[in-house]
Amino acid sequence: MYIVAQIRPIGDRVVVKPAAKEEVTRSGIVIPDTAKEKPQEGVVIAVGNGRLLDNGDRAAIDVHTGDRVLFAKYGGTEFKLDGEEYLVLKENDILAIVG
Amino acid sequence: MYIVAQIRPIGDRVVVKPAAKEEVTRSGIVIPDTAKEKPQEGVVIAVGNGRLLDNGDRAAIDVHTGDRVLFAKYGGTEFKLDGEEYLVLKENDILAIVG
Amino acid sequence: MYIVAQIRPIGDRVVVKPAAKEEVTRSGIVIPDTAKEKPQEGVVIAVGNGRLLDNGDRAAIDVHTGDRVLFAKYGGTEFKLDGEEYLVLKENDILAIVG
Amino acid sequence: MYIVAQIRPIGDRVVVKPAAKEEVTRSGIVIPDTAKEKPQEGVVIAVGNGRLLDNGDRAAIDVHTGDRVLFAKYGGTEFKLDGEEYLVLKENDILAIVG
Amino acid sequence: MYIVAQIRPIGDRVVVKPAAKEEVTRSGIVIPDTAKEKPQEGVVIAVGNGRLLDNGDRAAIDVHTGDRVLFAKYGGTEFKLDGEEYLVLKENDILAIVG
Amino acid sequence: MYIVAQIRPIGDRVVVKPAAKEEVTRSGIVIPDTAKEKPQEGVVIAVGNGRLLDNGDRAAIDVHTGDRVLFAKYGGTEFKLDGEEYLVLKENDILAIVG
Amino acid sequence: MYIVAQIRPIGDRVVVKPAAKEEVTRSGIVIPDTAKEKPQEGVVIAVGNGRLLDNGDRAAIDVHTGDRVLFAKYGGTEFKLDGEEYLVLKENDILAIVG
Repeated sequence: MYIVAQIRPIGDRVVVKPAAKEEVTRSGIVIPDTAKEKPQEGVVIAVGNGRLLDNGDRAAIDVHTGDRVLFAKYGGTEFKLDGEEYLVLKENDILAIVG
Repeated sequence: MYIVAQIRPIGDRVVVKPAAKEEVTRSGIVIPDTAKEKPQEGVVIAVGNGRLLDNGDRAAIDVHTGDRVLFAKYGGTEFKLDGEEYLVLKENDILAIVG
Repeated sequence: MYIVAQIRPIGDRVVVKPAAKEEVTRSGIVIPDTAKEKPQEGVVIAVGNGRLLDNGDRAAIDVHTGDRVLFAKYGGTEFKLDGEEYLVLKENDILAIVG
Repeated sequence: MYIVAQIRPIGDRVVVKPAAKEEVTRSGIVIPDTAKEKPQEGVVIAVGNGRLLDNGDRAAIDVHTGDRVLFAKYGGTEFKLDGEEYLVLKENDILAIVG
Repeated sequence: MYIVAQIRPIGDRVVVKPAAKEEVTRSGIVIPDTAKEKPQEGVVIAVGNGRLLDNGDRAAIDVHTGDRVLFAKYGGTEFKLDGEEYLVLKENDILAIVG
Repeated sequence: MYIVAQIRPIGDRVVVKPAAKEEVTRSGIVIPDTAKEKPQEGVVIAVGNGRLLDNGDRAAIDVHTGDRVLFAKYGGTEFKLDGEEYLVLKENDILAIVG
Repeated sequence: MYIVAQIRPIGDRVVVKPAAKEEVTRSGIVIPDTAKEKPQEGVVIAVGNGRLLDNGDRAAIDVHTGDRVLFAKYGGTEFKLDGEEYLVLKENDILAIVG
């Protein structure tokens, strides 16, 4: 995952590679096709140095590179690198670590 | 409940397994069918490590795995694991512990 | 009021049993039928352990079990227990203690 | 004003008895009949123990029982006690002490 | 200006006597008749004891009785005292001291 | 610029004299005529004593009298003094110092 | 990049020179043409002295002059200097450092 060297998210942001449809079953998570807000699954590729606290410190981000995560589908910003799709998300858009 | 090992909510989030319709009577709670906002009942499956405070500490979440809870119906994000439906909620969407 | 043992509100929430129409006169409070926002009367059944402060402490809730209170009518979430109607409210929806 | 013993506002709330139309001239204040937001005059009947500060203290309310006040007309919640009309207001809806 | 003894603004509020049209030229300030938000000129008649800080102190208000000020036209609440028009404003609606 | 003696902005406000159209080229800045939000150029005439911090201190304003600045076009309040147009802006509406 | 000497962003703002279309491939980042929010690439030209913290300190900005960055497309304010287009952005609109 040499992208780590190529992209460094700012602040409380993380870069996630969304799981392809066929990968979804790896963690056993299935996203139901209902009216409610649906999460998406992916792998964390890079993490920022955390949200700036009011005392000037940075709060370490609670997910790490390589974590398989559920994230809110509406969130984030897409980009492509070497033909692969990625998302820049706020840490707060990460719902859970799975698998 | 081996799902605990499989999913770890981030921050102030908890994973809840919503009660099936026939389970609702266990705690004696009945949700009236009126115009007001209605809560839902379920069991806490996993809890995050709490909201980040301004001083950099985490505030321990006030519900625990196994607690039977009332939660705001509008909140949360659905997902399925091994054929079972779950919800990721913010701690703040949990109204009360029951039973 | 054995419900106290059956339901524990989370954080800055309280459980209130709304006064039946015929009980309203007990404290002498009458709610006028006008266009303005109208309060409702009830009795506090259970209280949470208070809002989480930025320093990690909990702020004790300023009403107690058994208090007769006025609360904002729009607030809260309804549920039924053993055939009785209750409301889960935020402490901030309680306007005053009466009687 | 035995109502003081009968009603205790919560937090940063105060109970005010709105001035009847014929009382308005006592302080010399006249409310113009224009398009702008109009204040209302009344007497403070009871005060809460103040807004909860982030450090857990309560900030003493800056008006006292018996003060004649101007308050924002849109604010507050009406109720009746022994046939008299009262308002529960937030301290912040009190504009000034008059007279 | 005996009104000072008759009205005490609460918190971060000030009482201003708006300048009559013919007084506007005293400080040389002219309000252009354009589409942008327009300020109004007036004299400070009374000031509150300041906004409550999170540590429980009051922040002294930065204008004083007698100051000629520009204030945001949309802000404030009108009232009349002894036939004169006044405004209760938040300190934050005061833009500048002039003259 | 004797206006400094005539007008003192309150808190985190500054007074700016917008650049006339023919002055715009002095700093070399040109504002493109596109769909995005456009800034405006001007000179700082007077600065307030800064935003009040939660600890009661004032945060010194980061621009000074005489600075040539870019500012957000939508912001501020216009007034005229001795036939000249000025703007009262929040420090936060100042984007950059130029030239 | 003598513009550094010519423009100093205020507070938590940075000046970015957006990448021309043909430069986009340098870092290998490609912005997909989909319905989601799309980022833009550019180079940081100047940085402010950081957001003012509640304790009166400034939080150093986490990008530096010369960094190649992804930023949110909707953000920022355009201006031209010596015929070149630039953007003033909030640090928070910078998503990641690339390349």
